[in-house]
Amino acid sequence: MQEPSRPTASPERPERGASAARAFWQQRFAEVRAHTLRLASSLSAEDQCVQSMPDASPVKWHLAHTTWFFETVLLPRSPLAYQPFDASFAYLFNSYYEALGPRHPRPMRGLITRPSLAEVMAYRAHVDAALDEAIALADETTWETLRPILLLGLNHEQQHQELIATDVLHLLSCNPLLPAWQAPAPTQLRLAEDRHTGWIEMPGGIVDMGRDLPQDARGEHDDDFAFDNETPRHQVLLRPYAIADRLVSCADYLRFIEDGGYRTASLWLSDGWAAVQSNGWRHPAYWLASDDARLALQPQHGAAHTGPGWQVFGPHGLRPLDPGAAVAQLSFYEAAAYAEWAGARLPTEAEWEAAYDAPGIRGMTGEVWQWTRSSYDPYPGFRPLPGVAAEYNGKFMVGQVVLRGSSQATPPGHARPSYRNFFPPAARWQFSGLRLAKDL
Amino acid sequence: MQEPSRPTASPERPERGASAARAFWQQRFAEVRAHTLRLASSLSAEDQCVQSMPDASPVKWHLAHTTWFFETVLLPRSPLAYQPFDASFAYLFNSYYEALGPRHPRPMRGLITRPSLAEVMAYRAHVDAALDEAIALADETTWETLRPILLLGLNHEQQHQELIATDVLHLLSCNPLLPAWQAPAPTQLRLAEDRHTGWIEMPGGIVDMGRDLPQDARGEHDDDFAFDNETPRHQVLLRPYAIADRLVSCADYLRFIEDGGYRTASLWLSDGWAAVQSNGWRHPAYWLASDDARLALQPQHGAAHTGPGWQVFGPHGLRPLDPGAAVAQLSFYEAAAYAEWAGARLPTEAEWEAAYDAPGIRGMTGEVWQWTRSSYDPYPGFRPLPGVAAEYNGKFMVGQVVLRGSSQATPPGHARPSYRNFFPPAARWQFSGLRLAKDL
Amino acid sequence: MQEPSRPTASPERPERGASAARAFWQQRFAEVRAHTLRLASSLSAEDQCVQSMPDASPVKWHLAHTTWFFETVLLPRSPLAYQPFDASFAYLFNSYYEALGPRHPRPMRGLITRPSLAEVMAYRAHVDAALDEAIALADETTWETLRPILLLGLNHEQQHQELIATDVLHLLSCNPLLPAWQAPAPTQLRLAEDRHTGWIEMPGGIVDMGRDLPQDARGEHDDDFAFDNETPRHQVLLRPYAIADRLVSCADYLRFIEDGGYRTASLWLSDGWAAVQSNGWRHPAYWLASDDARLALQPQHGAAHTGPGWQVFGPHGLRPLDPGAAVAQLSFYEAAAYAEWAGARLPTEAEWEAAYDAPGIRGMTGEVWQWTRSSYDPYPGFRPLPGVAAEYNGKFMVGQVVLRGSSQATPPGHARPSYRNFFPPAARWQFSGLRLAKDL
Amino acid sequence: MQEPSRPTASPERPERGASAARAFWQQRFAEVRAHTLRLASSLSAEDQCVQSMPDASPVKWHLAHTTWFFETVLLPRSPLAYQPFDASFAYLFNSYYEALGPRHPRPMRGLITRPSLAEVMAYRAHVDAALDEAIALADETTWETLRPILLLGLNHEQQHQELIATDVLHLLSCNPLLPAWQAPAPTQLRLAEDRHTGWIEMPGGIVDMGRDLPQDARGEHDDDFAFDNETPRHQVLLRPYAIADRLVSCADYLRFIEDGGYRTASLWLSDGWAAVQSNGWRHPAYWLASDDARLALQPQHGAAHTGPGWQVFGPHGLRPLDPGAAVAQLSFYEAAAYAEWAGARLPTEAEWEAAYDAPGIRGMTGEVWQWTRSSYDPYPGFRPLPGVAAEYNGKFMVGQVVLRGSSQATPPGHARPSYRNFFPPAARWQFSGLRLAKDL
Repeated sequence: MQEPSRPTASPERPERGASAARAFWQQRFAEVRAHTLRLASSLSAEDQCVQSMPDASPVKWHLAHTTWFFETVLLPRSPLAYQPFDASFAYLFNSYYEALGPRHPRPMRGLITRPSLAEVMAYRAHVDAALDEAIALADETTWETLRPILLLGLNHEQQHQELIATDVLHLLSCNPLLPAWQAPAPTQLRLAEDRHTGWIEMPGGIVDMGRDLPQDARGEHDDDFAFDNETPRHQVLLRPYAIADRLVSCADYLRFIEDGGYRTASLWLSDGWAAVQSNGWRHPAYWLASDDARLALQPQHGAAHTGPGWQVFGPHGLRPLDPGAAVAQLSFYEAAAYAEWAGARLPTEAEWEAAYDAPGIRGMTGEVWQWTRSSYDPYPGFRPLPGVAAEYNGKFMVGQVVLRGSSQATPPGHARPSYRNFFPPAARWQFSGLRLAKDL
Repeated sequence: MQEPSRPTASPERPERGASAARAFWQQRFAEVRAHTLRLASSLSAEDQCVQSMPDASPVKWHLAHTTWFFETVLLPRSPLAYQPFDASFAYLFNSYYEALGPRHPRPMRGLITRPSLAEVMAYRAHVDAALDEAIALADETTWETLRPILLLGLNHEQQHQELIATDVLHLLSCNPLLPAWQAPAPTQLRLAEDRHTGWIEMPGGIVDMGRDLPQDARGEHDDDFAFDNETPRHQVLLRPYAIADRLVSCADYLRFIEDGGYRTASLWLSDGWAAVQSNGWRHPAYWLASDDARLALQPQHGAAHTGPGWQVFGPHGLRPLDPGAAVAQLSFYEAAAYAEWAGARLPTEAEWEAAYDAPGIRGMTGEVWQWTRSSYDPYPGFRPLPGVAAEYNGKFMVGQVVLRGSSQATPPGHARPSYRNFFPPAARWQFSGLRLAKDL
Repeated sequence: MQEPSRPTASPERPERGASAARAFWQQRFAEVRAHTLRLASSLSAEDQCVQSMPDASPVKWHLAHTTWFFETVLLPRSPLAYQPFDASFAYLFNSYYEALGPRHPRPMRGLITRPSLAEVMAYRAHVDAALDEAIALADETTWETLRPILLLGLNHEQQHQELIATDVLHLLSCNPLLPAWQAPAPTQLRLAEDRHTGWIEMPGGIVDMGRDLPQDARGEHDDDFAFDNETPRHQVLLRPYAIADRLVSCADYLRFIEDGGYRTASLWLSDGWAAVQSNGWRHPAYWLASDDARLALQPQHGAAHTGPGWQVFGPHGLRPLDPGAAVAQLSFYEAAAYAEWAGARLPTEAEWEAAYDAPGIRGMTGEVWQWTRSSYDPYPGFRPLPGVAAEYNGKFMVGQVVLRGSSQATPPGHARPSYRNFFPPAARWQFSGLRLAKDL
Repeated sequence: MQEPSRPTASPERPERGASAARAFWQQRFAEVRAHTLRLASSLSAEDQCVQSMPDASPVKWHLAHTTWFFETVLLPRSPLAYQPFDASFAYLFNSYYEALGPRHPRPMRGLITRPSLAEVMAYRAHVDAALDEAIALADETTWETLRPILLLGLNHEQQHQELIATDVLHLLSCNPLLPAWQAPAPTQLRLAEDRHTGWIEMPGGIVDMGRDLPQDARGEHDDDFAFDNETPRHQVLLRPYAIADRLVSCADYLRFIEDGGYRTASLWLSDGWAAVQSNGWRHPAYWLASDDARLALQPQHGAAHTGPGWQVFGPHGLRPLDPGAAVAQLSFYEAAAYAEWAGARLPTEAEWEAAYDAPGIRGMTGEVWQWTRSSYDPYPGFRPLPGVAAEYNGKFMVGQVVLRGSSQATPPGHARPSYRNFFPPAARWQFSGLRLAKDL
């Protein structure tokens, strides 16, 4: 372990006006980094070490990997004569960047009990200090290079903040005791929303979608930011369609279950039906039916607060199903089957984006990601970013499905209309739900 | 086993003009059915019984399944008081139609040594006779119902004709002796094509793609036919692009191999690179390097006709690599990596279709299916056919990639500009290759 | 393909007395080889080509492999200038002899549709003719070398005769139609045996078991033969014990099932209980409960001859359970659980062998192999045979369990008191049952 | 959580003489329990939580499970009105006792981040206090019941002490940094032992082996203890044999490696050769060849103390191979192949036990467990203990191989001549090595 190094040569100091901008970014950096730690603050070292499935990662790994990103991609381009905190971390905490050398196999991330959580915390502090210094000391030319990387790194860390939430929940959901991640919230059942779905009619025609990167990446504020997979801004031709003004709720989804949705092959895509049968799916991933054996292991088992019906596992532990809440932890297969059952369909991502600001529309962000009926293909004219960032998004563009919006686990300021989230169609440990659409 | 039954009631006989049309369809039916048998004619009962992998099916199963389709979907709607040839065949030879009851598991199709090939041949003859009679005897109203089913059944059988070819080749490729399916063709190496690729510039804009079904399905001739996944005809907005005037050849692909294509992670999609590493891919599925151990088992091992370089396994057995032939038996991953290496990309299916009749373009059909950069999603406005045919295409629309064109194994008359073939991105036992495109 | 070759040099002709002995062996050889073909005679080429699981082999492979053994191990030591029938067969039909070079992977034996069954039949005839000639023409010194190999080869072929029976039954049992291997036998239910089990008391003490090879291998007749795993003859010390005078019957085993045997963990070995749960075992492998869905596919479904109760699949197809027949197609786990339930245990192989000729004992051979409570370990002083035969038995001596006796599928003359059959404890496609024992 | 409860009724107090005996057992109990904690004392909560493979368990689980055993089997029979510490622990920490209800699946033990390590420590303290009280307060009749359970529980905990050592080492060996479990020991290479192996000749004949339980279980001291699988004491008849006076050393084993042992099929059992090929075994599990990529991640990489040759991972981290140390972390397959290569064989367990006190024999205990050539079968007359303990040993008696002796990880006082350890033949994360034997 070493202290962040002073620059080897005295750099041209940033000017005063620039200085205010640097302070802005120093603070922004500090805030994002602190939010990550806040997410982990209620978790023990044990909680942060274990990997619950190959698709998920330990929190400690997320803490280290996001740090590694800044250390590996930004600091070598900074004026600091920075030396890596620990030479082995490049091997341990690289996620999937082939260009950055060999790395520890993903399914074995949970076996890394050393370095300890405390060492990873020290790693974070060390890199944080170096970053702070690099932001302050870079001359303007260097800063023009660093700022887009910083912005990418912050957005990268925000993505991992959401994964910390969903990966922790998955881990805790594998514990038959179903422990709560966060302190229990006061039990306040929302009344079930009125079941009426309003349909917002959209005229179609040629619409713009996506984002252009070049100017954004040099924008002064991070709401100018976009990932490369959102680029370029381009036009698509839409037919007239209607989109639901609200998300599908737990009450809605319960009707699908009670109507035999999980037993009716004709509602399902072929791969979806196979998944239902081989995995024994009968409800969303974190729902517990009233005869679930794990309920007997709950400390206040039988107490009034759990109630007689469905329970849903979430950040606050087990809670009675909230009929008005958006259904979550759905696979694409389940979302598509529900839509078929409801006599509707999922929107395409272009339809979703075109309706983003439609008057009367609710729940586009902040509750659940919404599965679309669009496979994750490149936009016309898409080219990956140059350099290391080339591996950021483009190489995953096959076999996955696009989700739009954002969820309760998405950090503030990270959502935008053009954001393209993506997961394999069978994934169901995310805050993933749906909104209906139909042809006109 | 039973004889095809006479109609229970004397139907209204078709009129004379209609009679000529019926004769046309009787002949068309006979031709398609005969072509299937021709494909199998050089194969022993053993060859036709075995299943080489879960994705492939035995030839005997193809022979029976295509027959079952006519027996189950068409004959019950015909005027004949038809009784099924064997009550158990509905269980044995249903492929994936949930609406038609339980069925024999796909990976166990190769264990069905009984019924024998001879019995399946008798089954075919029995159903053929019934079909011939049903076409002749149906009154006009019934005929309006039967004809679209007949058309669908014939196109369905043509699809299986191609699968017979590719599944047999896969089976024979698993035999270390690499026996030839068909009599050896005279060795006549084509000279390598001029390597120059012409780029055809396409202006983009709003183009029509796909097909409308209703009128087609009632067309008098089967070139009016389309599958439901090609519908509806709709407009898309394209950017200007260029498309190669020819297919990627074996000589082209060999340069990619020799340039380390299979060792360069940055060329590959993430899932593709994982497939390369876990499967040890080093070349297309049916290529044999000169040090392949199976060459020692060849009867004329060392003889001049095999030569010193790459060998390619195909319908005529092992042949020296033909530099000018279209490269085939590629996965989507390999096609995409090649395009990346070549500084180009794959066309979208809309781009492919818009260029179908472009002046100077070659090889759009009849050589290899061409992987596109389009996931297999539904077209806007797509609805599956009603009834049993609903399960024909729509339920497979996730996790697969579209191929366009047709191959040397596609039966004559089965290709059309709007045809959407689809396979998972890792599939590489088809005659699947590629054509390049690029942005303008 | 070639004709069996004449000897290159004129050998010393065997003398007259020897000549009679040679004729004996020529006839013996012809009989064993003919019996193999008789087993396959009711099977189609399709039946003989397919492999139903990695543990089983196609009949065609058995036909070729037993021939390959004579061709590879005996003929090169004979006076004939023999050339292999086909150079590739050494690769295709070697089973597991590392010393004899690389070989086709076992799980892929069913993909070898070429060579055809007809070619394998020609291979057999070719090698048969060469063997016949080799036996006749060998001089006495050579004959001393050949005879033990011939004897081993014949016993080897007899082992494969039993595997042909059990592998074919397994294949047919995977066909939902459950076709019969052999012509139906007249339905003649044996009356259930008296359930009384007589216990034969054995005094224990020092007993001899096993066989000595050297003199045996040179015996004039094949009842002198033993495999190396039966050697050497040695003494063991037994405690007094009792052994049942009869096999466990289907009626006995049915009581175990009806008493909840498959649901009672405490009766089972740990691995056995895991197998019950993961495989869903509820009865012996070839029993069908009256609600088995496959019964609906039987042609005479509902006819009186199947009856309302349990059906058992066997060489003659489906038959009503015969209460007095020995229970078969049991794993070791099931045999051990049954014995536990019955308040008894399985005999050790030494106990079994010591009781072989006990007065009053029945069913030691000819019905079912009997699982013992002895793992398949080497006898004290065991050394594998020299040369290729070293791989015959010894290298399998771990992880398997010994069965004793013989079954209805064992060819006549192949059983003897010291015979050690062995299978993994989960295997249950053999004619494997049990006999009880207990301490005194 | 609750305090250990006082007895509900005032028990008959133990008499004075008895009182001294009780104090002995209180101390013995405290010592064994403290030793377990000592083993874990250098491990972080993270280290103790993770499960490195399904065959291994987390240290925290071992800590809890051994406690659960006392709580569940002993305390309900004690005079205390004991209430379980936490009702859910019966589910979480039952290992495999079917009679004690359902339990958490073994491969998911590593996902139990809650209860935390601190809670498990509190659980231990709580049960320790209750045990101490129960020992003191039990009347004599109750004590006669409790003492054998206590003895069993202590021996059970000692077995888990060894598993803690081997499971921790396996976990750390999966970390590419190869961290040390214990503080580095001073580097003091033992000189390679003289390679001469002395052969101790044993006469054979009838020998006694095993142990009788009834009197042992009531013995005053735990050196009277034996597990049920060592019973009953019985006689076996041995042939004359010779046994090596020392263990096979790392230097010995290195010669096997250098002579191509891992490339020579004829040395291996069939399953062993398959394991070599499918797992890529080239040396014992914890040996690192000098080109091992993990060496580059070592902090003092290149430093003199690692040296140029083989490194061996162990409790003190990476150390240069010690030629005179007993080879360890071997599977049975490797031990058997080594013996074959050395022209010898493994001893049977009876031979091993008969030679236990032979003059001149060394290393029978305290270095490595020694694979024998005996499958883990029941002794003649073996009956499992009644009650819960019935599941302790007997149900694992198939598919495993016996090891004899004890290792450096075995707690003091836990070894004895009749001890039967057992593992599947492929296991190689134990301190398992071998000693040679041969026929005379």
